[in-house]
Amino acid sequence: MHTDPDYSAAYVVLETDVEDGLKGYGITFTLGRGTEVVVCAVNALAPHVLNKDLGDIVGDFRGFYRQLTSDGQLRWIGPEKGVVHLATAAVLNAVWDLWAKQEGKDPQTLVSCIDFRYITDVLTEEEACEILRQSQVGKKEREEQMLAHGYPAYTTSCAWLGYPDATLKQLCSEALKDGWTRFKVKVGADLQDDIRRCRLIRNMIGPEKTLMMDANQRWDVPEAVEWMTKLAEFKPLWIEEPTSPDDILGHAAISKALAPLGIGVATGEQCHNRVIFKQLLQAKALKFLQIDSCRLGSVNENLSVLLMAKKFDIPVCPHAGGVGLCELVQHLIIFDFISVSASLQDRMCEYVDHLHEHFKYPVLIREASYMPPKDAGYSTEMKEDSVKRHRYPDGEVWKKLLTAQGN
Amino acid sequence: MHTDPDYSAAYVVLETDVEDGLKGYGITFTLGRGTEVVVCAVNALAPHVLNKDLGDIVGDFRGFYRQLTSDGQLRWIGPEKGVVHLATAAVLNAVWDLWAKQEGKDPQTLVSCIDFRYITDVLTEEEACEILRQSQVGKKEREEQMLAHGYPAYTTSCAWLGYPDATLKQLCSEALKDGWTRFKVKVGADLQDDIRRCRLIRNMIGPEKTLMMDANQRWDVPEAVEWMTKLAEFKPLWIEEPTSPDDILGHAAISKALAPLGIGVATGEQCHNRVIFKQLLQAKALKFLQIDSCRLGSVNENLSVLLMAKKFDIPVCPHAGGVGLCELVQHLIIFDFISVSASLQDRMCEYVDHLHEHFKYPVLIREASYMPPKDAGYSTEMKEDSVKRHRYPDGEVWKKLLTAQGN
Repeated sequence: MHTDPDYSAAYVVLETDVEDGLKGYGITFTLGRGTEVVVCAVNALAPHVLNKDLGDIVGDFRGFYRQLTSDGQLRWIGPEKGVVHLATAAVLNAVWDLWAKQEGKDPQTLVSCIDFRYITDVLTEEEACEILRQSQVGKKEREEQMLAHGYPAYTTSCAWLGYPDATLKQLCSEALKDGWTRFKVKVGADLQDDIRRCRLIRNMIGPEKTLMMDANQRWDVPEAVEWMTKLAEFKPLWIEEPTSPDDILGHAAISKALAPLGIGVATGEQCHNRVIFKQLLQAKALKFLQIDSCRLGSVNENLSVLLMAKKFDIPVCPHAGGVGLCELVQHLIIFDFISVSASLQDRMCEYVDHLHEHFKYPVLIREASYMPPKDAGYSTEMKEDSVKRHRYPDGEVWKKLLTAQGN
Repeated sequence: MHTDPDYSAAYVVLETDVEDGLKGYGITFTLGRGTEVVVCAVNALAPHVLNKDLGDIVGDFRGFYRQLTSDGQLRWIGPEKGVVHLATAAVLNAVWDLWAKQEGKDPQTLVSCIDFRYITDVLTEEEACEILRQSQVGKKEREEQMLAHGYPAYTTSCAWLGYPDATLKQLCSEALKDGWTRFKVKVGADLQDDIRRCRLIRNMIGPEKTLMMDANQRWDVPEAVEWMTKLAEFKPLWIEEPTSPDDILGHAAISKALAPLGIGVATGEQCHNRVIFKQLLQAKALKFLQIDSCRLGSVNENLSVLLMAKKFDIPVCPHAGGVGLCELVQHLIIFDFISVSASLQDRMCEYVDHLHEHFKYPVLIREASYMPPKDAGYSTEMKEDSVKRHRYPDGEVWKKLLTAQGN
């Protein structure tokens, strides 16, 4: 579906007049064209942030979230979806980065950041507090566990569509050598090619290691069931994004049909807000929930989804990749383990080895696990030189490209 | 929810090098700020249209629709929702306006414009053709009926939130004098104010005329049920947008709870694509379906929704108002009556008396009915002088405003 990605990002930098010199960095990425539209939306949201006091913003973070997502005029071009919501994520990610550099948070503070509008039929503020309270038990041990062993990751880098056997073999044996035990294969373009690649990978990794499949929304509902029935012999743990991210009932139908084959449904990277996740949980439409801090409204909205997932006992396995998404979601998923789910059962975080070199605080992977970040903030700051070189349209990289294109 | 609307629109004009001099006009409106974001997205979509042959576009209109909505990079910032989908609507509305000025369409051609992706579990191409074939019966009589009496409309202009009694009485008695028999009241901000206004209106219009209520997404699910239970005594036909437009299961729960009170649920003006409408129908979440040609992907996507509604036997009652939306949706709903639903049972089209003076082919209302437009095209062209005066930021109206603001 995404045939020519040229990863790009809207990058928000918040500065204040406080003498600590701290800045907040926020990001949301796109596949290339479209970033200019997101930037335009960030500028449209800017009046809500400029010349405001950070203390006032985080002092009523729920209200600030509501203000951004329910702007009386901008709401029309969402609401809480698409371009304006991506822009909201970028802005809020920057606020969280800045705030996190200043101070720690307690559970009560976190709940006060959540806008419960439209989800109280499934999760109330009181229930959220109760979940966080109960998860205090064993928290210290889980923190130590994370520091020692990290959070389990899986790799998506081995088996893209159409890779020839030789490439697959090489990537797969390298990944095995690096300690990876969970592998994701892209499927859905050509059934015979899928069968060939899945067979090869399954043979290489053996029956014990974990294989997942990802269709990137290629199918209609009946087609998804039919296609996956044919790939069931390779024992995938999940099929990711079998159809439209908007189709809650479709995912529920696919889940029901594939359950007897032992295949779970995973989705979320293009689910646009907490209301969609609420329904996916209500409808038993997924077995694995994939959050994303560049599409949902930053930590605020992701918190509500983590808490709903906990209530429904559904594991969260974040979407990562893109530009800087690994850097962001590692915070969310390690927090989920320590303070919400308290479990690693059926849980893992996506990892793609791409573009980390541009980040000032890049993720650290050790033995196929995310090691907890130790620097304060949301790990969203890019290296100054990377930003300078890649800035559109006046960075050196773009200047060369545009000159080559004769612009 | 939309507290300070300052109606504005992205206005697309397509020109060709054909000597007939025809142009295509397309529109999508916003509540003010945000139009610049939509315009940015229209520009991002422009390469799909510029220097293309109209014959090639409409010759494979399904493919062209797919190309716009599944652009490999821009898809990420939707898909098929929010800003990019509004921009898609504006572009496609212009294509339809231009195409409609050139020639008539037959049912088979219309079906070939629909992208059935993600809806084949509910409506296949064959079923769509069959529905249109069956509706050929009595078509001539329905055309004559429309030409003689028009399509029934309702008015939203009488009872906005917080209007004092005197205003309500005056507006309502004027509307009654003009022949209106269906009235919509805005509710949801303050229960006592709602009760006061609903009682006054119901008393003025009497028990036989139709009253609808519109909450503009203000409530969570339990709150919607509770609030409407208290307004049930005023016998509303429907409650519109009781909660988030994304909440299919929430609408279903509200529908179920309110059915015993004789209140139906209506929604659609902010439902972002055919996949949402498909599910609302599957889940029995609404009794009245409200399409919108400035949010859905123009005629192409609205056709698929009209056909699904027919299959589920749910009446379509279009959203109108905004900028030019009455002008657009009258075409869709009159087509629905003549060629799809063949029924006026429980059906009516919204009407707001606002901004028609800027359109070259404004709607014609006679005895509370939309009279069929007689000019070729989609009635989307604005008067040259209106465009010139209101263009942002260089039109005379804006220049004065900006000067007054000191910009």
